[in-house]
Amino acid sequence: MSERYDIAIIGSGPAGLEAAINAKIRNKNVIIFGNKDFSPKLIKAPKINNYLGFYNISGKELKNQFENHIKNMNINIVEERIDAVYAMGEYFALMVNQKMYEATSVILATGIEYGKPIKGEEEFLGKGVGYCATCDAPLYKGKIVAIIGYNKEAEHEANYVSELASTVYYIPMYKGDLELNSNIHIINGIPKEIVGEDRVTKLILNSEIIETDGVFVLKDSISPSQLVPGLEMENGHIKVDRSMRTNIRRCYAAGDCVGKPYQYMKAAGEGQIAGLTAVDEL
Amino acid sequence: MSERYDIAIIGSGPAGLEAAINAKIRNKNVIIFGNKDFSPKLIKAPKINNYLGFYNISGKELKNQFENHIKNMNINIVEERIDAVYAMGEYFALMVNQKMYEATSVILATGIEYGKPIKGEEEFLGKGVGYCATCDAPLYKGKIVAIIGYNKEAEHEANYVSELASTVYYIPMYKGDLELNSNIHIINGIPKEIVGEDRVTKLILNSEIIETDGVFVLKDSISPSQLVPGLEMENGHIKVDRSMRTNIRRCYAAGDCVGKPYQYMKAAGEGQIAGLTAVDEL
Repeated sequence: MSERYDIAIIGSGPAGLEAAINAKIRNKNVIIFGNKDFSPKLIKAPKINNYLGFYNISGKELKNQFENHIKNMNINIVEERIDAVYAMGEYFALMVNQKMYEATSVILATGIEYGKPIKGEEEFLGKGVGYCATCDAPLYKGKIVAIIGYNKEAEHEANYVSELASTVYYIPMYKGDLELNSNIHIINGIPKEIVGEDRVTKLILNSEIIETDGVFVLKDSISPSQLVPGLEMENGHIKVDRSMRTNIRRCYAAGDCVGKPYQYMKAAGEGQIAGLTAVDEL
Repeated sequence: MSERYDIAIIGSGPAGLEAAINAKIRNKNVIIFGNKDFSPKLIKAPKINNYLGFYNISGKELKNQFENHIKNMNINIVEERIDAVYAMGEYFALMVNQKMYEATSVILATGIEYGKPIKGEEEFLGKGVGYCATCDAPLYKGKIVAIIGYNKEAEHEANYVSELASTVYYIPMYKGDLELNSNIHIINGIPKEIVGEDRVTKLILNSEIIETDGVFVLKDSISPSQLVPGLEMENGHIKVDRSMRTNIRRCYAAGDCVGKPYQYMKAAGEGQIAGLTAVDEL
């Protein structure tokens, strides 16, 4: 049986880190899923002037301050991408490829970096469209699969699927060399629409049309409502109350994913509230 | 005619400072009323671990970081205590003793340090009870006035009133030497209730009962609903929406005064939202 954490935090930007710090101070068993660089947006910021306490600091320097802070508190970031969060009643199951983590509470601090879905993507989700190719690969044994990859990691998933599927198309959405098995067909084009009837039958690109049984969209992050089934959204953001509760019991949210302004201090402030509310309600 | 500021911020804790920084970055003409030490609570904190970016920092050190930040941005704190804020339609009038400041928008970041009102205080506000003795002194020419003073500053107000009133009672709520005109009667006791009919007639203390025409309660800060007539409260805090708007147009609030948890990061995050919303709606 896997360890059950008190609080699982998804996202390692200022909201996720501040939530973790506050929960840790209150002696809770916390796990953060994210990126060792915390937030791609942060490390690219040339100059930040509106984070009270640091004048004229670069994103990299601020990242180092954050890193120093959490290291001193023995908070480690687990570099895994959660594909789905299921409310099981007494706890949440967080799915990562073939693994599962358990936590009593969940704080969503996923940011707002997920793009717009492709036409048809939401309609066919679970009917041929998926976000975790390795999870669903067994379903596509001997079948045709198209993988839209937004990062290098997606190549590993494609390679894995290519050992089971009859045909794998890989559509890279980024530049750079690809490390793909030789039996994978690389398609250079922009996905426009996923079509089908009961299930997916075709992926339409600007360049061509592919007949396929499944389409995997492998992004850095997926939208919160796709991540957590049943999560209530409002104008494209997770709906929260002033204590950062979502509509799902013991599921909280903070940072850019709950609304504008998209700013570090606002995100961290909300992370603190989410962390403390989660602790109170354990 | 007095200068009209874009945004007046009342309170110099993390919420007020962060609001100021954000408005200043957007080239707004900002004034902050507060204390050069920022927040009495802050400088007394022995160790702070939950302000992301600073591990194991003392309140004094964090205060120095804040000071360095706002000095670099040419933000100065005006050490005056606003007694009342009136919505005039196109602008707000902020009253300080005999002076008035004008601002298009107001951000309330007053903290939560105001005590509970004395019994009868709210009932007789404007009917013999006041918060600015020097403002209302002319009304008490030849009359009896009781002044409940919470700090040394109140002594100056008492001395001023004593030149007009027939009798001034001074009830110090703090320890230390008093510098009062010789015609002021010092009463050592704890105020229990303000009573009267249409207007105040008596102040009841634990030690004695004083017949009086007026009672001034001179605290470090007064409650927001007393500061801003018509401001909507909810469970003892200023009611705000997620963009930190109060029920009064162009009046925003952030920090402890809008609700728990009473924490620096949460306050600063809300200050950022309030500052940016204020800028957007100018």
